[in-house]
Amino acid sequence: MLPLTSGLGDRRRGGWLGVALALLACTGTAWAEDGYALWMRYVPVDATSAGGYRAHAQEIVAPDRTATQRVAREELERGLAGLLGVMPRLRTTLGDGGAFVLGTPQSSPWVAPFRRDLQALGDQGYLLRSARIGERDVIVVAARDDVGVLYGVFHLLRLMQTGASLDRLEVRESPAIARRVLNHWDNLDGYVERGYAGGSLWDWHTLPDWQDPRYIDYARANASLGINGSVLNNVNANALSLSPDYLRKAATLADVFRPYGIRVYLSARFSAPIEIGGLATADPLDPDVQRWWRKKADEIYALIPDFGGFLVKANSEGQPGPQDYGRSHADGANLLADALAPHGGVVMWRAFVYAHDVPEDRAKQAYNEFVGLDGALRRNVLLQVKNGPIDFQPREPFHPLFGAMPRTPLMMEFQITKEYLGFATHLVYLGPLYEEVLHADTQARGPDSTVATVIDGSLDGHALSGIAGVANIGDDRTWSGSHFDQANWYAFGRLAWNPRQSARDIAADWVAMTFSRDPDVVTPVVDMMMASREAAVDYMTPLGLHHVMARGHHYGPGPWVDGGPRADWTSVYYHRADRDGIGFDRTSHGSDAVSQYAPAVAREFDDVDRVPESLLLWFHHVPWEHRMASGRPLWDELVHRYTHGVRSVETMQATWDRLQGRVDAERHRHVAAFLRIQRNEAQWWRDASVAYFQSLNGRALPAGETPPAHPLAYYESLQFPFAPGDGR
Amino acid sequence: MLPLTSGLGDRRRGGWLGVALALLACTGTAWAEDGYALWMRYVPVDATSAGGYRAHAQEIVAPDRTATQRVAREELERGLAGLLGVMPRLRTTLGDGGAFVLGTPQSSPWVAPFRRDLQALGDQGYLLRSARIGERDVIVVAARDDVGVLYGVFHLLRLMQTGASLDRLEVRESPAIARRVLNHWDNLDGYVERGYAGGSLWDWHTLPDWQDPRYIDYARANASLGINGSVLNNVNANALSLSPDYLRKAATLADVFRPYGIRVYLSARFSAPIEIGGLATADPLDPDVQRWWRKKADEIYALIPDFGGFLVKANSEGQPGPQDYGRSHADGANLLADALAPHGGVVMWRAFVYAHDVPEDRAKQAYNEFVGLDGALRRNVLLQVKNGPIDFQPREPFHPLFGAMPRTPLMMEFQITKEYLGFATHLVYLGPLYEEVLHADTQARGPDSTVATVIDGSLDGHALSGIAGVANIGDDRTWSGSHFDQANWYAFGRLAWNPRQSARDIAADWVAMTFSRDPDVVTPVVDMMMASREAAVDYMTPLGLHHVMARGHHYGPGPWVDGGPRADWTSVYYHRADRDGIGFDRTSHGSDAVSQYAPAVAREFDDVDRVPESLLLWFHHVPWEHRMASGRPLWDELVHRYTHGVRSVETMQATWDRLQGRVDAERHRHVAAFLRIQRNEAQWWRDASVAYFQSLNGRALPAGETPPAHPLAYYESLQFPFAPGDGR
Repeated sequence: MLPLTSGLGDRRRGGWLGVALALLACTGTAWAEDGYALWMRYVPVDATSAGGYRAHAQEIVAPDRTATQRVAREELERGLAGLLGVMPRLRTTLGDGGAFVLGTPQSSPWVAPFRRDLQALGDQGYLLRSARIGERDVIVVAARDDVGVLYGVFHLLRLMQTGASLDRLEVRESPAIARRVLNHWDNLDGYVERGYAGGSLWDWHTLPDWQDPRYIDYARANASLGINGSVLNNVNANALSLSPDYLRKAATLADVFRPYGIRVYLSARFSAPIEIGGLATADPLDPDVQRWWRKKADEIYALIPDFGGFLVKANSEGQPGPQDYGRSHADGANLLADALAPHGGVVMWRAFVYAHDVPEDRAKQAYNEFVGLDGALRRNVLLQVKNGPIDFQPREPFHPLFGAMPRTPLMMEFQITKEYLGFATHLVYLGPLYEEVLHADTQARGPDSTVATVIDGSLDGHALSGIAGVANIGDDRTWSGSHFDQANWYAFGRLAWNPRQSARDIAADWVAMTFSRDPDVVTPVVDMMMASREAAVDYMTPLGLHHVMARGHHYGPGPWVDGGPRADWTSVYYHRADRDGIGFDRTSHGSDAVSQYAPAVAREFDDVDRVPESLLLWFHHVPWEHRMASGRPLWDELVHRYTHGVRSVETMQATWDRLQGRVDAERHRHVAAFLRIQRNEAQWWRDASVAYFQSLNGRALPAGETPPAHPLAYYESLQFPFAPGDGR
Repeated sequence: MLPLTSGLGDRRRGGWLGVALALLACTGTAWAEDGYALWMRYVPVDATSAGGYRAHAQEIVAPDRTATQRVAREELERGLAGLLGVMPRLRTTLGDGGAFVLGTPQSSPWVAPFRRDLQALGDQGYLLRSARIGERDVIVVAARDDVGVLYGVFHLLRLMQTGASLDRLEVRESPAIARRVLNHWDNLDGYVERGYAGGSLWDWHTLPDWQDPRYIDYARANASLGINGSVLNNVNANALSLSPDYLRKAATLADVFRPYGIRVYLSARFSAPIEIGGLATADPLDPDVQRWWRKKADEIYALIPDFGGFLVKANSEGQPGPQDYGRSHADGANLLADALAPHGGVVMWRAFVYAHDVPEDRAKQAYNEFVGLDGALRRNVLLQVKNGPIDFQPREPFHPLFGAMPRTPLMMEFQITKEYLGFATHLVYLGPLYEEVLHADTQARGPDSTVATVIDGSLDGHALSGIAGVANIGDDRTWSGSHFDQANWYAFGRLAWNPRQSARDIAADWVAMTFSRDPDVVTPVVDMMMASREAAVDYMTPLGLHHVMARGHHYGPGPWVDGGPRADWTSVYYHRADRDGIGFDRTSHGSDAVSQYAPAVAREFDDVDRVPESLLLWFHHVPWEHRMASGRPLWDELVHRYTHGVRSVETMQATWDRLQGRVDAERHRHVAAFLRIQRNEAQWWRDASVAYFQSLNGRALPAGETPPAHPLAYYESLQFPFAPGDGR
């Protein structure tokens, strides 16, 4: 900042050319559309809109007693300076111009009259309203608590960023879900499991002494969406994250995040009492173990008074857990819940477990393990359930536990990072995936028992509710590894606040804030985003196929994957293709996984004529000749879908090419390069999959279909020992 | 860029306030003094200087036929826009105003008259001269080749950045050393061994399709210093870096770097013929192995026509090498040299080797291994020798191989990354360390046979010469992990160009370009930098102590380190302290390492009364009562030095605190936080070392010295399993 402002006088003499050049210089050195600003770019709005907004923007009347009040006010200042080029007067009392009035009934006398409206909105909810106070037209940003005001400021800025009118403003917002949390799978050495955006954002080595300003921008971005929790470390946890040194580091992050309404949580390793506590056991019924966890919770809360709680992956993929001692998951979860309860903390116990012995159908395991524990968990335990019964596939049916445990608050676990969806180089907007799951009807209490109503607690009357997204955030300059992956962080946050929102509307907001308000940009980009998830399904796992990625790192196709330590880590286990047919028979004649769903749903999935074609091979093993809705036999349809996926990416490329000149060159080039990668990898997926399945069924390609570029052996030979994000 | 320029019309109506706010907004979103711009910030100069410079800056007359010509011209434009707020007319012929005239005798008729001057400067040299051409005052940037012009442009910009006059300009520069190379210890999975600046800059996963703009800024920074080579991958090499896939990726980086005069090199794993070639042996005398390397070299040069060559770490720390087959290092180096020779490539063969069996003195090993091979290496082999005989310690005597192999071009290997010097959080300017080594007199051919004259080839008449720095560059926003570590990259580059430059002058340039031209900033910051290396020596390894860091990661003190796989990986091997004395006896009565130096040097080091006190314990084992120049006994002096190191850091803190307001707040805060870490860790070093040595000698602390804060057992108990940069 110093050189820019100190140079201003000089520029003035240089006239407007000098200013333009100074701006160019700014471009040349450090200003760049490099994605760092996310959807908070606050670039100038057009003159017409600006005129309307400026009338309100003469003053900001806001309290500044608390840290949250200050960051709310500063965010509004930052936004107005960028959007409108104005710096309103800051006041603690109303002047005579148009004003933004911020506050709670406690912090502002001008907000106090709205007390009744605010009651209805609850904690963290907010009200945006144009009003007249005395002779003055004002816009009120009001809430019951400071964080609600901060959320309201971000909403107000979003309205201006997207060109909405502020006339006759009347917005009432409340979060549908109480705990809106990011899960960072970040190791203490800075590696991010399933991370495609560089290393961990947390520089554990320099914490607590150095607080990277990036931590603040992370908090701002989350607060702009209403995300209010952050699990700092990997669910495959290291016990040392609970050691005093690392708790001090975590406490510093909590201090940075607190003004933004974000609580810190930690993944807890179940065997920590042994590894860092010196005990001989981690048995949840052992009094020493119980005492150790109580003392550990006391220690944590002494450092982090608003600590959120523990996330636990236990007895899953080699992690220790209560079953190591013959105890149940409920015993394990309740052990930690009892330690946290006196301080108000919660346990988020993951349902992603599967037995060491390979069962007949892994899709059934979580349900079988947990459904009987309904009612056995403490009141401060959330059961965190992945969106589908396998593992973050491009498409899965909703998890059968949703709706099946009415006495237990179920927390959604979405994956924002694209482990199975092309990493950061594939443009796949996950809004439609999230929306599809949230809108799915469990029929648990009859029609309209959507997954959203399960996780927001409304279906079964739970006050405690939660939703988690496995973060796609790292120290890459774009935060998310690509420009478009920012949209997935964004969409997760917006849907966590309100699971009933439309993925398309969210995309439209994001594009307007991130790229351009120009409808000639917004419309095609939103269309492209909305089609992108189905494109990925088509070129990777059409018609209900799943888990056919390469082994371990999941980079690229691997339908031939077989052998290895366990059958349910192979592809052939899942697609079950042979000369005659393909698909996993989960019907009542097969593994009967369908029976885990409510009867109305189960009947639909069980019936080969009623099951959605998009889930056909998930639930049914069908012959290659099976006639599809298109009239094509299954084999032809499958090949058609693969090819269609590739064509869809080409359409995305064409759309993007047409936007050259309407999107800044820097990001245009970046996205175009990634789309080229995606196009080539889509072709690779299509060709490898077709070659493989053709090697099983010996069928000719449908007319007009191009043969794979290489023989199957070529695709099978490809090795990627350094593919990013692999588990360690 | 788009939003800024498109918003200009709007800002114009808003008047100057609008502009100021727009600049603020720019600050608020993406412009930031975050260190990314390095020493190429190009912020406006003061009005007086600008007036003088602008007279010349009306036109740029420069060719633009080659990529290097274009980047030279663009860099000058970028610099002038930032420094002066002007955008000179670009012309291909002289106009009527002041002008910068760029070119070579071939590319520019105005440069052709300087042909004779340029002959004397040689390749990559350049001439900056104010001249009159016809009626016009011009500044000529002339060279024999395009890269020389680019270097000249950076020199010209440096003059303006540091406020030098351009009147009566007459600068002639030629590089003293031919190969000025960075060694990146970057693994293919993105991890950087001994890296404290985040992950690797090279995103191997998205190469070759995506070329991160950061690669260009890396090349600009290196070209600004004259660095002309980059070894992309770790000397602990993976053979896959020579596989076709990774060669294509490397070729893309070479394409990006080529306009900036930077060649790509690769670390070659000696056993690659087995690992990726399918051969049964890597024996250098095996015809199949020789054929494999020749074909590999052909393959590389087909992709990278100006490929620089191979860097090899062989038979060292577990790496494979020719000795695995009973062959010599010369056999190994010549194998690769013969493969590269037809293409003009070189081999940089590292002398950092030590036997699997622990010898009586590791300091002697490289010399013993290589001195007999003088004359046995091909003409395109450089022997790359670390600055000292152990391993990048805070202070070592110069390596005894310098001056001892007159028939072999010896290449210097400095470490820029601070493996043993406090990682990125300690402010330690390495200019004085480099200078000390380069100026050290080997006496190989009598007085003034400095190390610099050995490595620049002048002492023994070698045309091939080289210098390498182990890079401190990663994907951290600061590039180097801290703001001040950028100065070490900078100083390495400047000294590689001219090893006779003064570390202080280089620091002054760097501070002026990086922080401020204000003498009230430059003077104290340079003083602080110049004192910083001695401070680190004092609080870590005073009086010639060495290799007493913690095991493996080398983070923090570990003088007690003992046991483990080999004695020469312990601290006690090196300090040899006991009840009576301390130090490694390398005199003629001890290991006789002194005899590896030229007689005049050996006599000085051998004599306890003549050896510099700074190397006392490197060469001598002396009793604790040994009387030092200060009059104090050794033990008192040792404690005094430790304490003095801590005090020196406190002085640095005080200096920096006084600069608040004169340095931008963002970087001031960052540096201040790191200085706090350094101060605390200096105290830790002092206390742990004093406690440990006191436990051996049982001596009282000198009067006035504060006892360590904790008992020795506390320091010994500290564990840092996630310290960054550890070898894998």
